[in-house]
Formats: sequence, structure tokens, C-alpha cells
Amino acid sequence: MMKEGKVEIGGGHEEAHMGKGKGKLASIRGIAIMDLILRIAALVGTLGSAAAMATTDQTLPFFTQIVRFEAQYDDFTTFKLFVIVNAIACGYIALSIPLSIFHIIRRRAGKSRILLIILDTIMLALVTGGASAAAAIVYLAHTGNSSANWFSICQQYQNFCQRVSGSLIGSFGAVVILVLLVLLSGIALSRR
Amino acid sequence: MMKEGKVEIGGGHEEAHMGKGKGKLASIRGIAIMDLILRIAALVGTLGSAAAMATTDQTLPFFTQIVRFEAQYDDFTTFKLFVIVNAIACGYIALSIPLSIFHIIRRRAGKSRILLIILDTIMLALVTGGASAAAAIVYLAHTGNSSANWFSICQQYQNFCQRVSGSLIGSFGAVVILVLLVLLSGIALSRR
Repeated sequence: MMKEGKVEIGGGHEEAHMGKGKGKLASIRGIAIMDLILRIAALVGTLGSAAAMATTDQTLPFFTQIVRFEAQYDDFTTFKLFVIVNAIACGYIALSIPLSIFHIIRRRAGKSRILLIILDTIMLALVTGGASAAAAIVYLAHTGNSSANWFSICQQYQNFCQRVSGSLIGSFGAVVILVLLVLLSGIALSRR
Repeated sequence: MMKEGKVEIGGGHEEAHMGKGKGKLASIRGIAIMDLILRIAALVGTLGSAAAMATTDQTLPFFTQIVRFEAQYDDFTTFKLFVIVNAIACGYIALSIPLSIFHIIRRRAGKSRILLIILDTIMLALVTGGASAAAAIVYLAHTGNSSANWFSICQQYQNFCQRVSGSLIGSFGAVVILVLLVLLSGIALSRR
């Protein structure tokens, strides 16, 4: 992030020396580098979320006839969906990194930026959907719902609940980053 | 939508007659008109969703000690959130319509388009989150979850479940429209 600031300040100096056109191109390069850094962060976030969720299970040291003695993430369809969505997003972001590097080199590229806006927006909707659906179930697991007679399961499965709640962080981080990526692409397109 | 096609074809004709610059502006006007139509559709979708969810409750003609005799949307925090998110989105879309009309008249406007991309993207994340979280709870209400001992409530509350499921449609429609709006703004920005 610090590096980013420098690049943009550099762009500002160039603008004074070399006129408006070149200054604009330099600030586009700053945006492109920031785009790359944000993509790497989103890659780590979605990968971490998918991995943390996919390895979650807890076996209790006791069992009764009412409470099951093991909880796994794939007992919940929503959590399975969460892993799939994060894996897809992770794969997409990995594939988009070469294109992001290409944008640092070729600053005037227009069509490939629109392609990235389209795909980033679709991924944003996908990841937000997966993360929010999982969050709704995690909330239910913590608090339960008395009207529907759904009881909290977090008192029995404490580790399971903690792990599942934690795995949401990376995914919601990726949501914020994807919003920023769409904005950066929009700004880059308008300055081209 | 038909009207839209005509406008864009009209733009194509103009391009042949009056050169590339004016043709581009005409196609931007086509995009701006489509933007306005999509916004009105999204307004109807989110308003319908919020209204359908907020008026959902069902009283059963019988009650036992195990099953409660009334189900209301606000027994579920997620459904309350769904109504709030859709109301916010509905308000935002209503406020953005004047700006959309301004874009039809002033086709070269740049900064206001970036503002709309930023706000549209944030609203997309918000509405997708609300709709997905509600969908996760609706799915649970339909199927239940045996590991957590959460039983399906849709056999008791059939009307409630149908109404709640139906109210998701408008919201997911608005999600699709918001994705399209971000794309249209991106294309308009690149052609400006």
C-alpha cells in the first residue's frame, strides 16, 4: 500500500513536468499496480476461507440420543456452497492476475478492462452471496430461533462454531476488495 | 427493451452519416436510456420484495405446546435485515433516477458516472447479501437440517413459506439488474 502511494505521487510529479496526457497514464499505472496488489490479497482471502471451512469438523467426546456426536461443514448445504463459491472466486482471481499485470504494461488497454469489470462484478455478486448465506446460518447456529424451534448448536459444538465464524472473515474481506477492484477499473477506464 | 434496440440501431446509422464521435455519443445515449429503464425495474423489484416480506405473517387455526401458533417475518432477524436492505436499495434507486435522466441529456458527464458505479457496486453487495442470507434461511425452513436438529417449518406454515420464498424473486431480480447497471456504466465510461 505504501508503494502504491509513492507511485501515485510520482504520477503527480510527472503531470507537472510532462503535461496532462502523460500524467494521466502514470496515474493509470498506479491504479494498475494497486489492482494487482488487491487481487493478490483477495486470492489469499478466498483461498484461506475455502480451506478453513473445508477442513472444519468436530467430534464430541460424548453423545446422547438427541444430540449427534459429530459436526462437519458439509452437513450444511450452505457451507458446502460457501466452499465451492470461494474456490471458484479463488480460481478466477488467480487467472485474472496475468491480465492485471498486462494492464500495468499496456496502460491504454480498454476492452480487457471492461472484461475485468464484467467478471469482477459477477464474482462480487457470487462471493457476497456465498458469504452472506453462510453468515446467516452461522448467526442461527449462535443464537437459534425460538419461533421455529431451532436451538443454538454452538454450546455443544464450540470449536466448530468458532472455526466456521472465522472462515467468514477472508470471504468478507474479498467482498470489500472486489468492490474496490470494480471502482479502480471504472476510474482507470474514465482516465484512459 | 424493444425501444432500446431501436435507439442503438439509430446510433449505428448516425455513425455512418456523421462520423465516429457523434456515433459514440448516440450509443452512449442508448446506454443511458437503458440505464433508466433498468433502474425503474430494479425500483419495482426491491419495493415489491420489501413489501411482500414485511406483510408476511400466518396464524394457524390450531396450536399445541410444541408448535407456536403464529409465524411472522420479524421472528427471523435475517428477514428483518432483508426488508431493511431492500428498503435502502429502493430509496437509493429512486434517488439515482434523476441522475440517470441527467446522463441521457448530458452524455459527456464523467464524474457523476463514476459516482453511480461506486454507489451501484455498494448497493449490489448490500442487496446480494440480504437476498442470499434470506435465501439460506428459506432453504433451511423448507428442508431443515438433521445434524443440528433443526426441523422444517414449512409443513406447518405453508403460506408463510410460500410468501417468504416469493418475496426473494424481486430481490434477486434487482441483483441481476444492478450487475447490468455497473456494466452499462463501465461501457459508457470507456466510450465517453
